Amino acid sequence: MDDLDTLREAVRRFAAERDWERFHSPKNLASALAVEAAELLEPFQWLTEEQSRSLSAEQAEAVRREMADVLIYLVRLADQVEVDLLAAARDKMAENALKYPVEKARGSARKYSDF
Amino acid sequence: MDDLDTLREAVRRFAAERDWERFHSPKNLASALAVEAAELLEPFQWLTEEQSRSLSAEQAEAVRREMADVLIYLVRLADQVEVDLLAAARDKMAENALKYPVEKARGSARKYSDF
Amino acid sequence: MDDLDTLREAVRRFAAERDWERFHSPKNLASALAVEAAELLEPFQWLTEEQSRSLSAEQAEAVRREMADVLIYLVRLADQVEVDLLAAARDKMAENALKYPVEKARGSARKYSDF
Amino acid sequence: MDDLDTLREAVRRFAAERDWERFHSPKNLASALAVEAAELLEPFQWLTEEQSRSLSAEQAEAVRREMADVLIYLVRLADQVEVDLLAAARDKMAENALKYPVEKARGSARKYSDF
Repeated sequence: MDDLDTLREAVRRFAAERDWERFHSPKNLASALAVEAAELLEPFQWLTEEQSRSLSAEQAEAVRREMADVLIYLVRLADQVEVDLLAAARDKMAENALKYPVEKARGSARKYSDF
Repeated sequence: MDDLDTLREAVRRFAAERDWERFHSPKNLASALAVEAAELLEPFQWLTEEQSRSLSAEQAEAVRREMADVLIYLVRLADQVEVDLLAAARDKMAENALKYPVEKARGSARKYSDF
Repeated sequence: MDDLDTLREAVRRFAAERDWERFHSPKNLASALAVEAAELLEPFQWLTEEQSRSLSAEQAEAVRREMADVLIYLVRLADQVEVDLLAAARDKMAENALKYPVEKARGSARKYSDF
Repeated sequence: MDDLDTLREAVRRFAAERDWERFHSPKNLASALAVEAAELLEPFQWLTEEQSRSLSAEQAEAVRREMADVLIYLVRLADQVEVDLLAAARDKMAENALKYPVEKARGSARKYSDF
């Protein structure tokens, strides 16, 4: 599993072997991804931000496992809707750079309160 | 942006240049990730599974952008909690293979109704 | 528990007795609510829409419990940010009626694909 | 809109008038609820807990509107799966009281770190 392509192939094979493709509609995968992202949020929900920066070994392991699930479903969804994840992220980062120029954004939380 | 390491460095630099590290506690990043995952679910919520398999160009573009956001926050969170995403996914896939042996899982939706 | 006011008082007392108010910042409660809403989504994620209309007794019970959690956190958050939930819902329904006039909305899924 | 029953009837009528019942499968409503709960989380995601306790007028209004959406979808889902929300919440509160006895829970965050 040394890159996203290898992971995509592994997940694809995993689903095919189990005849699970029929469950893996983009709609269902997007639901599963949202559920996993919430499970990743769960260990953090009552922690202070400070505490969240120094997790116990047990918490860190739980977080690591949920992050794996998020990535697996994200890669699976990308496979189904034919999105190149790294190219999409590159495009989004370029867009963000235009939207939040360093000079205006620096030292300001404006983005973060400006919903 | 040819791999996750490059993306991690780009996001790290982006945050540093804007002095946004203080917002990027693991707790906050896990929230942001859950919010983005829900935004990714939104375009699918009223579609049938069938419709979700053939998105319009506009829908596909929205989905691609939200997937990028999910990946960016996931990579950023992984950076903060020092998780190797691909190694975590590899371990989780190995665990899943033990949990859902092909013979028992094949042709069965049991996993999927067995919460 | 015959109305939302009674529920609010019960939840308030429950938290006070356990000295849990300090955990119940609006930020944390909003996280907990999102986590519970995802747990409510989980039993549905691999079901077809049709299947979701006829849950097994076990599924129905799981769904009922998660709905209770969502309501409890929603009422607790409303208490902390001083929102009258029913008044807010009434205002939102009035707004929705203006946004989706019957004549234009009827027989159209436009709202639902028009994100 | 003086109670949940009135709200349920209003939402039911709203959907019927627009012929939207076909979109309102429990699966779809659970997705919509999760999406709205995440939208409610969004205004809080970069705030400190302290800041979340004193929202600006604009933030408070956004939060109020998202809370309304959560309640509306929750009531609509409850209608479809025939759950009495207040009875479910009452049962869950009784269960929580057994699970977290005052003596053991008081002054302890154990629940909150014990996932």
